[in-house]
Amino acid sequence: MKSRKTRKGESRKLSVKSVMEPKSIAVIGASKSPGKVGHTILRNLIIGGFTGRIYAVNPNAGDVLGLKAHKSVLDIRERVDCAIIAIPAPYVKKAVLECARKGVSGMVLVTGGFREIGEGRLEDEIAAICRKNGIAMIGPNCLGIINVNKSVDSIFLPIYKMKRPLLGGISFVMQSGAVGSTVLDLISESNIGVSKFISYGNAAVLDESDFVKYLREDAETKVIVLYVEGVKDGRRFYGELKEAAKVKPVVVLKAGKGELASIAAKSHTGALAGNYTVFSSMLRQAGAVEAENLESLLNLSKIFLQPLPKGDRVLIITNGGGDGVLAVDAVERNGLKLAKLSGRAARRLKRAFPKHVVVGNPLDLTGDADGRRYRKALEEAIREEGVDSIIAITLFQTAGLGPEVVHEVVWANNSTDKTIVCTATGGEYTKMLLKIIESYNVPAYESPEDSVDSIAKAVWYSRKRGRND
Amino acid sequence: MKSRKTRKGESRKLSVKSVMEPKSIAVIGASKSPGKVGHTILRNLIIGGFTGRIYAVNPNAGDVLGLKAHKSVLDIRERVDCAIIAIPAPYVKKAVLECARKGVSGMVLVTGGFREIGEGRLEDEIAAICRKNGIAMIGPNCLGIINVNKSVDSIFLPIYKMKRPLLGGISFVMQSGAVGSTVLDLISESNIGVSKFISYGNAAVLDESDFVKYLREDAETKVIVLYVEGVKDGRRFYGELKEAAKVKPVVVLKAGKGELASIAAKSHTGALAGNYTVFSSMLRQAGAVEAENLESLLNLSKIFLQPLPKGDRVLIITNGGGDGVLAVDAVERNGLKLAKLSGRAARRLKRAFPKHVVVGNPLDLTGDADGRRYRKALEEAIREEGVDSIIAITLFQTAGLGPEVVHEVVWANNSTDKTIVCTATGGEYTKMLLKIIESYNVPAYESPEDSVDSIAKAVWYSRKRGRND
Repeated sequence: MKSRKTRKGESRKLSVKSVMEPKSIAVIGASKSPGKVGHTILRNLIIGGFTGRIYAVNPNAGDVLGLKAHKSVLDIRERVDCAIIAIPAPYVKKAVLECARKGVSGMVLVTGGFREIGEGRLEDEIAAICRKNGIAMIGPNCLGIINVNKSVDSIFLPIYKMKRPLLGGISFVMQSGAVGSTVLDLISESNIGVSKFISYGNAAVLDESDFVKYLREDAETKVIVLYVEGVKDGRRFYGELKEAAKVKPVVVLKAGKGELASIAAKSHTGALAGNYTVFSSMLRQAGAVEAENLESLLNLSKIFLQPLPKGDRVLIITNGGGDGVLAVDAVERNGLKLAKLSGRAARRLKRAFPKHVVVGNPLDLTGDADGRRYRKALEEAIREEGVDSIIAITLFQTAGLGPEVVHEVVWANNSTDKTIVCTATGGEYTKMLLKIIESYNVPAYESPEDSVDSIAKAVWYSRKRGRND
Repeated sequence: MKSRKTRKGESRKLSVKSVMEPKSIAVIGASKSPGKVGHTILRNLIIGGFTGRIYAVNPNAGDVLGLKAHKSVLDIRERVDCAIIAIPAPYVKKAVLECARKGVSGMVLVTGGFREIGEGRLEDEIAAICRKNGIAMIGPNCLGIINVNKSVDSIFLPIYKMKRPLLGGISFVMQSGAVGSTVLDLISESNIGVSKFISYGNAAVLDESDFVKYLREDAETKVIVLYVEGVKDGRRFYGELKEAAKVKPVVVLKAGKGELASIAAKSHTGALAGNYTVFSSMLRQAGAVEAENLESLLNLSKIFLQPLPKGDRVLIITNGGGDGVLAVDAVERNGLKLAKLSGRAARRLKRAFPKHVVVGNPLDLTGDADGRRYRKALEEAIREEGVDSIIAITLFQTAGLGPEVVHEVVWANNSTDKTIVCTATGGEYTKMLLKIIESYNVPAYESPEDSVDSIAKAVWYSRKRGRND
């Protein structure tokens, strides 16, 4: 990796890989007591099946969870790529110095009690040690990381309260641990897969720009998703976003749009709104996709698992008229186009379907539609040159529609490079089938508006990237 | 009820009560065959525990589901308040004539195959018979109705695919059966209770205005929620909305904003947008709350279970900093105000909490908050005169926060007439606790933005109603 010279005292190359893809991890503060952070982290690494070697460090314990406890990281004979530090703030500096002597090159410092409570000096000292010794450090005051493929997991939240995700192509970079953990919990409940998760807290050494760069180069990451409140170095961030957006979609949720709102309500609003406007247009220029809110962040994460739309013409297939109307409203609001079926396709569909089916766009298969009717509609849709994206609205409340339509949607998705999404609103039965659909990498949305809004952002990104190519 | 003279040939009073609150129901087309609409309806009435008398009508069956099958409604000796008709379209007219002779005063005509497929004349004939004979008819081509309190249920969708709601105060009027059934399924999955549900299809006799009027007068209904694509009589609708909004909140989702979009994309857009603008400002003038989309319709349904906010000052209590920031962004975007804690309350909170708790707005209890910290925060919040609404963000992913905080939020809700909502984002564990919270009539939202957006609409309605008083 390139040496970074933008900061004073920085001389050694920092390898984000050391922390994200370590072959060996030492847990400093590994504890025997269930409920302690250092216990949970060690436990999660063991039961999660971390693919490398694990070392426990604790001066007061003989062994922890079946592992020998080393008094210091220096007592470990083998090489240690990454240290996860979970000890109280006053002891951290010494541990970091020992890591430096040991030649550790990656670090997750989960401990809080630094800049966020006014202890900026101590944080700066620790950061300087890391930089000087080439330690790529994430934190302090953070949840840390998950690398699903390698079963690296530094998150100290209980698994029954926050599920862990399946393996997939979305990577998250989250400034807020709270927002990060809720998003991770939600996406883990669906069958959408994740590659990397990074909650980086105070960003004393590595920051959002480093992670964007790392994930751009990471072949396992197909989509980069960021939540940021503020960025350390705006110019560098812009550059990294722009480079990343050239090769893969980058979705960004900016929070703190009126940044001082919590302190000084109403005053300075103009200036702050200005700041946000600048940020927002910076994102656009860089080719990053802006998410409007938390829900949109999740919706956009998964749209980019699909092939990018080649144009703005959307076909809506539905078994509920009202949902078709809501989708059309959203198409118009987003400035997309309703695809027009060719005369030949329309004739074939009219021949195949009962008279009460409305052959148009929306293609309303009506309330008695079954899997076969969807199959026929999807067959024509994927053949049509005038169709770029297909929204399959499959309302499962009707007696006639069941799991077989999942098969048809997945078949269509595997048979075309058009953008295909599924939409269904409802309770337990519906949600179960949506989860199955998502396990085949077809994004599923709970409302027609969410589907269309997500496709609109994909169309925007596709065009932007086309122009940049 | 008042006689309606706005339509030709209309002479008899129509009683919506006859169909919504019947003491006896005849199912015309009651069938022995599971899967048939007439079978499902009869079955749902029986197992649902309809509180009145049920009669089966079927000329070809000796008995159905343990009930004697009458050859015609005329063969029933006792009084019949309401007929639910589920026979093919060609036989409907004869059945309706017999209902008229029998003196039936309420009707749900679920059968399709009328105006929606070009058979408008037959529909008009049937409607004329109903009006002349004082039959309050819902339909044709509809799902029909649910009256939770009386266990009236004409919905022919299987219960395992569309759950039935608990008893509560929200009533739905849904032009689209598809949208209606999905909304009903979703709300049934939560513990939010419903009073009446009406899916009225072609609206040949009773229309949206009749239902708004009925629900305004219905003491069990606390909130009226409508989904409309078009209205039959705009002036009358406006009048009914306005009357209703004076006494209870009315939430409206208008679909088909660019009504011809599906037929003639892009052309006439200006004119159509104009139409929608007129509709939207009509809603505002009438004092009805407009929902922007399907999700917002659901979010708004439940905010009005809370006392109306007395002002626009919102206090955010959170255990996740990022979620607090997202809430503040939404407060600013909606033009609401962040409540300012009094000096005395701030001092008491600072004394009670550890140093790292941020006593401000957001009141960030931080990641190690437990139920007791929320209790203290809520105690102060409900005492503060400068606080109108309280958003309790309770992220359950942390090890320290569990069901005990549900108790504290419910306690606060029962101790104040301020507007209180709960917010938590996450998977299975989180959703379970949100369901429990909602069973106590505290609205729970899955994102900070949804909470704030909903409160903003409640503030708008509260002011509007205040001015009208």
